[in-house]
Amino acid sequence: MEKLKRRGKTIGFVPTMGYFHEGHLSLFRRARRENDVAVVSLFVNPTQFGPSEDFKRYPRDMKRDMLLCKKERVDYVFAPNVKTMYPGGYQTSVDPGKLASVLCGKSRPGHFRGVATVVAKLLNLARPTVLYLGQKDYQQCLIIQRLVADLDFPVRIKICPIVRDRSGLALSSRNTYLDEKGKSAALALIKGIRWFRAQVRNGARDARSLEKGVRRILMKAGARVDYAEILDARELSPLRTLSGKILLAVAAYVPAAKRRNAKREVRLIDNCMMKISKGGSI
Amino acid sequence: MEKLKRRGKTIGFVPTMGYFHEGHLSLFRRARRENDVAVVSLFVNPTQFGPSEDFKRYPRDMKRDMLLCKKERVDYVFAPNVKTMYPGGYQTSVDPGKLASVLCGKSRPGHFRGVATVVAKLLNLARPTVLYLGQKDYQQCLIIQRLVADLDFPVRIKICPIVRDRSGLALSSRNTYLDEKGKSAALALIKGIRWFRAQVRNGARDARSLEKGVRRILMKAGARVDYAEILDARELSPLRTLSGKILLAVAAYVPAAKRRNAKREVRLIDNCMMKISKGGSI
Repeated sequence: MEKLKRRGKTIGFVPTMGYFHEGHLSLFRRARRENDVAVVSLFVNPTQFGPSEDFKRYPRDMKRDMLLCKKERVDYVFAPNVKTMYPGGYQTSVDPGKLASVLCGKSRPGHFRGVATVVAKLLNLARPTVLYLGQKDYQQCLIIQRLVADLDFPVRIKICPIVRDRSGLALSSRNTYLDEKGKSAALALIKGIRWFRAQVRNGARDARSLEKGVRRILMKAGARVDYAEILDARELSPLRTLSGKILLAVAAYVPAAKRRNAKREVRLIDNCMMKISKGGSI
Repeated sequence: MEKLKRRGKTIGFVPTMGYFHEGHLSLFRRARRENDVAVVSLFVNPTQFGPSEDFKRYPRDMKRDMLLCKKERVDYVFAPNVKTMYPGGYQTSVDPGKLASVLCGKSRPGHFRGVATVVAKLLNLARPTVLYLGQKDYQQCLIIQRLVADLDFPVRIKICPIVRDRSGLALSSRNTYLDEKGKSAALALIKGIRWFRAQVRNGARDARSLEKGVRRILMKAGARVDYAEILDARELSPLRTLSGKILLAVAAYVPAAKRRNAKREVRLIDNCMMKISKGGSI
């Protein structure tokens, strides 16, 4: 990478955990289009999974992923193993601060410390010009932006829109855990988001009652709500009344397909961002 | 820096808190001699000082420092202010892990988190080829080596020997706090180290009794011992019997010169490393 940069080449970088879907591919295409060289990392990072989470079962398909990278004309794929990334004696970590104390950071203690640490490592290894992230992991995007600014990593960040299937379900590698029943519960996330959008467009501004409405939609569809929160989109601080750049972030557990060693539930996330001007228009 | 590197230039980097003494200058000279470009940073980093420590009183003399840099033909001096390094909203930090839990890390909670964070920032800003550190801050060297390895910073580290005055006192910007009385107490650090070396050369191998001997020398000279510990030099883990690469690390408070707003005591550190082969020879 150093040599490429020395020759003045720009590097677009997409960090991933593999098991690619159209969301990933949209990032690869953009990295390729906007830079001389596109680099993808493929690493299921153990330190961002909690002890009771799905690190071991996380879906993997290296062969298919490599073919997709080739098809998308990714120039370099970096697919290290766990021992290469975390050899014996490893002990330094990156602590992301208060942005990591809410939403997924609250439900998944240590998750964002794991994310921040592996991203710092990958930035030092890939030395990209531009880092591409997907908005589906909104809190992650914000934390990585903060990390890059706070630790002065010399990289620009571009955040790319959520890619959804025809039914509106946000693409996720974990969707592979879903059967029909799970899928129908999973659709409650986008249903809640659409309801929220409509309400806000109709003038609703009270955060608590909007959150309540979203939760009701999720529960009704058989999803177990982890959180449904409306926050300031920049600081992730709580809001009473919607104004400015706001975020609705949703996480819910939906039934998983019955498989050997499988968990009973899948945790899915989704979000939407809206700008509400002072006059009240959107 | 990026442009220099692109042209294939090597960059030698010395991070400092200013108020230069021969110890600093020895690092500048080496950075200059071994690289195309020598870069020095000059920043009294508030996050590595505890609330009751000497951040505000830490000796500063920018004018003299700049002249010394010029004299030593340093190519670039980076002297940011606190707001540039830690603007509003700043919240990410680098957590150095268990190496930071002993010695100075124990006496100065948060100190090495501050050090690790600012060093990560400076590495990203200066993008050096080689980082030069002084062995006087032995634990700091070890933590930065770990940080660089763990977070994959693309930089080599060179650790340079402690520079002492004629009496044997390790040079430190904090020596400026000392008057005659303080100086004579401060000399107990090197006295303890010399006694330790002689004992080990004569075959002493029991860590506890050697530590006790060093503490006795310090106390006798009017120094208040913070720690005097013999540890494995790589892991900073405790030792019962000396073998392999070992470290004696000493920290003590000695009386400070009486000045307005001055603290009554100065905290000084020193150390020595020895290799003891299996046969028992040194």
